[in-house]
Amino acid sequence: MHRSIFFLSDYGLDDTYVGICHAVMARVAPEARVIDLTHGVPPQDVMAGALALASSVPHGPPDAVYLAVVDPGVGTERRALALRSGDASLVGPDNGLLWPASLELGAIDVAVAIDHAAVSRGPVSRTFHGRDVFAPAAAMLARGSPPEDLGSRIDPTTVVVLDTPTPEVRQGELEASVLGVDRFGNVRLAARREHLERAVLGGDLVLVRQGATVPLRRVGTFADVRDGAFGLLEDSAGWLAVVRFGAGAAEELGLRRGDTLRLAARRDAVG
Amino acid sequence: MHRSIFFLSDYGLDDTYVGICHAVMARVAPEARVIDLTHGVPPQDVMAGALALASSVPHGPPDAVYLAVVDPGVGTERRALALRSGDASLVGPDNGLLWPASLELGAIDVAVAIDHAAVSRGPVSRTFHGRDVFAPAAAMLARGSPPEDLGSRIDPTTVVVLDTPTPEVRQGELEASVLGVDRFGNVRLAARREHLERAVLGGDLVLVRQGATVPLRRVGTFADVRDGAFGLLEDSAGWLAVVRFGAGAAEELGLRRGDTLRLAARRDAVG
Amino acid sequence: MHRSIFFLSDYGLDDTYVGICHAVMARVAPEARVIDLTHGVPPQDVMAGALALASSVPHGPPDAVYLAVVDPGVGTERRALALRSGDASLVGPDNGLLWPASLELGAIDVAVAIDHAAVSRGPVSRTFHGRDVFAPAAAMLARGSPPEDLGSRIDPTTVVVLDTPTPEVRQGELEASVLGVDRFGNVRLAARREHLERAVLGGDLVLVRQGATVPLRRVGTFADVRDGAFGLLEDSAGWLAVVRFGAGAAEELGLRRGDTLRLAARRDAVG
Repeated sequence: MHRSIFFLSDYGLDDTYVGICHAVMARVAPEARVIDLTHGVPPQDVMAGALALASSVPHGPPDAVYLAVVDPGVGTERRALALRSGDASLVGPDNGLLWPASLELGAIDVAVAIDHAAVSRGPVSRTFHGRDVFAPAAAMLARGSPPEDLGSRIDPTTVVVLDTPTPEVRQGELEASVLGVDRFGNVRLAARREHLERAVLGGDLVLVRQGATVPLRRVGTFADVRDGAFGLLEDSAGWLAVVRFGAGAAEELGLRRGDTLRLAARRDAVG
Repeated sequence: MHRSIFFLSDYGLDDTYVGICHAVMARVAPEARVIDLTHGVPPQDVMAGALALASSVPHGPPDAVYLAVVDPGVGTERRALALRSGDASLVGPDNGLLWPASLELGAIDVAVAIDHAAVSRGPVSRTFHGRDVFAPAAAMLARGSPPEDLGSRIDPTTVVVLDTPTPEVRQGELEASVLGVDRFGNVRLAARREHLERAVLGGDLVLVRQGATVPLRRVGTFADVRDGAFGLLEDSAGWLAVVRFGAGAAEELGLRRGDTLRLAARRDAVG
Repeated sequence: MHRSIFFLSDYGLDDTYVGICHAVMARVAPEARVIDLTHGVPPQDVMAGALALASSVPHGPPDAVYLAVVDPGVGTERRALALRSGDASLVGPDNGLLWPASLELGAIDVAVAIDHAAVSRGPVSRTFHGRDVFAPAAAMLARGSPPEDLGSRIDPTTVVVLDTPTPEVRQGELEASVLGVDRFGNVRLAARREHLERAVLGGDLVLVRQGATVPLRRVGTFADVRDGAFGLLEDSAGWLAVVRFGAGAAEELGLRRGDTLRLAARRDAVG
């Protein structure tokens, strides 16, 4: 049986970029299933794409092929990669996009720099390597080709690293950036429960931003703040998130991706 | 052969929620086909999701598995359901979301309250039961598990009911709410042809809203009002809809989901 | 093995139109794979849909079935078509939508006017032929029915033709319309490299619009204008496109689909 391909990009769904990549994969590996993770990564936002991919890889089958394309450097000298981590594979540009997912999967066991001639059946455009390089490479892996068939092995330690943002942790205080806002207006922070623990922030909190202070209740799910308060919870990917029941926390707090804010113990802020 | 899963939610496609649910289903039931009905249900709008699901179930195969997630109460005590109606199955939260579809399919033959431990292979988050409870449950049904394997049987009459809105019908007049506006600006009303008949509204009509009166021609399709008039037709799901050719009726009339309006015989309004 | 269906429409993904068409195809041809090309064609924009389809057909398998629905005339006397071009098939309304794709595939070998009774299992709505006519027709072709089973053969020369826009070419100058703007803000022009050559425009250029003049560098890919200049490149579908690195050229230039602009040699504009 063929391996499944999980496809993530910043192509959006209004153009035919995604559909054409699917067409290419259907031609190269007609029996492989292709599943869209998302194509709504903000345009050319490698960090957002990398984090979305990393949060997805724990949920696919062990032998999944992950195809990720967020590629501002398309057509330049940046390498095209095929990585193997355990039984899973990752395909995409060498710009850090695959790095957090490879950590999530364990380590990079094999790294290959894709040779265009080995994966493409015709001329390769300089602006759409999703179609001409990455999709056929992923399809070849899905139908059973070893990564070595796609190009030449490279030293895995030369793969471009991407450091995900971390909060500044101080005693009783934590400063974090906003990783993203989802469709429900939940505000995902670049911080995890462990950071709260290191900051010795155990109970209810306040969110401080540009002078304003908003109480945050530590909760487990959205309905725990049915009364209209703002809540702080550990979301389904393990990030801290600011939420509000039945309303968008992001809009009400004026928060957007990339903003920074401070979390502090409630008594400290009041006192 | 495996049964197909039809998936509807309010997750949107910009995040990886939908893709991760697909990944989980691919792991649990690798041979089941998963078809997206829509993920554009307005966030946490159980009624909109319920109506979208109900209008879809007549068109799937008889043995389809319908997975629906619009779930403001995720992580609370609300039950997770697996229902069997004839050969079809419905999976989703017990908040009314599945009710209109179950009526469309006939009746609920078997109802099961899903036991998390029976469907999940690990810890269950309190905020993403699509991934941790509903997707694996649907995938188990798709690969042939009987509903009883997913939890314990409950009395079908205890399933939460959702009453879809109905118009007020008077002699020569009908008052209805706007169920939704589609991408073409067509205005779907919470009223059907039978309501016009009961109101003895046979010919052309007027739409009355906030004092303003707009003539509506009874038509069969969009091109019947190529001349620029507004039309009233029975849409593809059997609802009455206000339409305009080549333009969005909703925008021109200033109508949005939830608004109410009045339909009356043309002569009455003029007289 | 069943043939794959490639599906394009202006239905968008927020309603269940696309999902219901998928459900119909899954019922008629349960083993056929259905791939979405895009459903983001601007509502009722036959030209945009036709060009998107034409740019996709070179990338599918030779025996693909293309299902395209952009259909302002649904429910009128306009014909429903099933065309065979080589081993590929095209299904959609007879309004020009399929024409550029049929040219791309070579020629129309067989043309059939679909007979509703031959493809539909029940009554046919007057507003949703995607569901009731085109999707079942495509699914029948995918599972192996010859086009003749879908209706009666017609003269291929009677199929509605759609002329794609072409630029005005003068010595040292080219006037072109904007075909579309993609998610990255790239501005696709209704002009190809051959038009530049015929206008004897070899080097760097200026874009002239409403009196304003913007230098354009001839480049091969986005990163060639990392310095912030505007570039002109041949895009992945062979159209000329105005681009900017890391920013939307369309927004910065105030360009939208349907606008016209002029390209001229740089020295001419300066002189």
